[in-house]
Amino acid sequence: VTEVALGRAALIGTGALGASLGAALRSRGLARAVVGHDPAAAARALELGHLDRAAASLAEAVAGAELVLIAVPPPAVAEVLLEVLDRADPAALVTDLTSVKGPLLAEVEGAVPAGAAWVPSHPLCRTDGLGPDAARADLPVGWPVVLTPGPDSVPGAIERLRDLWRALGASEVRQLDPVANDLLAAATRQLPHVGAGLAAAALDRLPAGVSLLDLEGLGGPSLSAAPPGLDASALAAHLVANREAVAWCLERSAAWLEDVRERLAAGDASGLAELLAGAQRVRRRVAGRR
Amino acid sequence: VTEVALGRAALIGTGALGASLGAALRSRGLARAVVGHDPAAAARALELGHLDRAAASLAEAVAGAELVLIAVPPPAVAEVLLEVLDRADPAALVTDLTSVKGPLLAEVEGAVPAGAAWVPSHPLCRTDGLGPDAARADLPVGWPVVLTPGPDSVPGAIERLRDLWRALGASEVRQLDPVANDLLAAATRQLPHVGAGLAAAALDRLPAGVSLLDLEGLGGPSLSAAPPGLDASALAAHLVANREAVAWCLERSAAWLEDVRERLAAGDASGLAELLAGAQRVRRRVAGRR
Repeated sequence: VTEVALGRAALIGTGALGASLGAALRSRGLARAVVGHDPAAAARALELGHLDRAAASLAEAVAGAELVLIAVPPPAVAEVLLEVLDRADPAALVTDLTSVKGPLLAEVEGAVPAGAAWVPSHPLCRTDGLGPDAARADLPVGWPVVLTPGPDSVPGAIERLRDLWRALGASEVRQLDPVANDLLAAATRQLPHVGAGLAAAALDRLPAGVSLLDLEGLGGPSLSAAPPGLDASALAAHLVANREAVAWCLERSAAWLEDVRERLAAGDASGLAELLAGAQRVRRRVAGRR
Repeated sequence: VTEVALGRAALIGTGALGASLGAALRSRGLARAVVGHDPAAAARALELGHLDRAAASLAEAVAGAELVLIAVPPPAVAEVLLEVLDRADPAALVTDLTSVKGPLLAEVEGAVPAGAAWVPSHPLCRTDGLGPDAARADLPVGWPVVLTPGPDSVPGAIERLRDLWRALGASEVRQLDPVANDLLAAATRQLPHVGAGLAAAALDRLPAGVSLLDLEGLGGPSLSAAPPGLDASALAAHLVANREAVAWCLERSAAWLEDVRERLAAGDASGLAELLAGAQRVRRRVAGRR
């Protein structure tokens, strides 16, 4: 493992993930200074000690930086990335932290300067809230990181980025094709929320004579606790023993899933958010205290 | 709270749940003796100290018992219950621990002796494996218990059973209609496994060029981690950002859900077990170490 000893690191986006990486770089002494830019959150991130300095603009943040981490929301990544590659030192190591890579690569295709030291990262660590107040210096520790370099990626950049993630405590750094990465993101980070909504969807439309109030607090820690170690035969026997109620629920679950698919196909983010928030509300009401 | 001080307690079925209750009764000194009957598991439960004695027959176990707990698999409950009510002292408090009540009540309708002190229980605590080796004396502690007494239930019996569960550490004892109880069981204990299978189903049939091997170990603790506190708008934005991969997965998820519904409608427990076991295998392969 090469020693990572950076001069200035720039963070574009200092929400929960960005600020966590700022805190991690600082606490491990991996950069001489961490400069963050975020119109909404940089002041708070600085106040919490996750940055050495807040920059008023992207250009100011990346000037003189040897490393640039881009941690902005998915719709903004492509534009921010191109601006960073335009403003930063050509030798600077640049990575974005967004979980979805295919659309980003398609969006920036042909616009990335040749020889730019940009390699996309997808750290699999999970933040637990929004904004710099949810940041933790140990967030990346013990989690894998996926890199999705393209055929034009500068080989030295891939190595430098691997070393950086290892120095930040990643359990493993693995290269994946963007298609594989995006399926991984869908199946492990996004579909679980849809799966957890299935049961909630059934409880959201109870039959006459049953009230959600009756069930409040009885669900255990959450409706999504499904340890994969449970015996499948015993589980199936219980499903069959309860087939009438399960079928009743699954009918509503299937309808809910169809709603999710339709809103997704329409690109209707606010409609999707409404479906997911509704399911979360039911889950929280039915979830017990432990 | 009335003091619970029992003479002999009988356990019919000494698997993970039954043996846990045996251990709980013993460790809290709630019964003078705990006698278990289980052709397969009683010897091991006795060896582990979860029973005072193993009885060779149901009749021997319930003779002289003041409390009978029935913890046998769902398909056997009705028959065992009627035999217990036939053999036990009419004053003995009898409860079954199966999670699904409607089908059981329908099955025993008209066959329960008038005045029998039988009240169905549905403890919401979750066992973590099968058999007496998975038993823990503190299993019921902190979990709610649902009772589904019928109109004929002896009122004194309901009170005695409430007191027993409280003495065993239940966080709450609530009476529910059997229909409400069965929907609760479906939505909180059974559907989460179906929901968790959704994502796994997608990963089970990856597109050409992507191998499950590439994704092995990258999924985090499990594919079903979906904290209900995550911001729904941020979540929806991620789903839309990854819409192609998510839609690809959801198409397979919906097909898997349809398979589940068909096998359930056919009462095909072994077919269902196969679907659930397949999903669990994928989840374990993709799940990371932490």
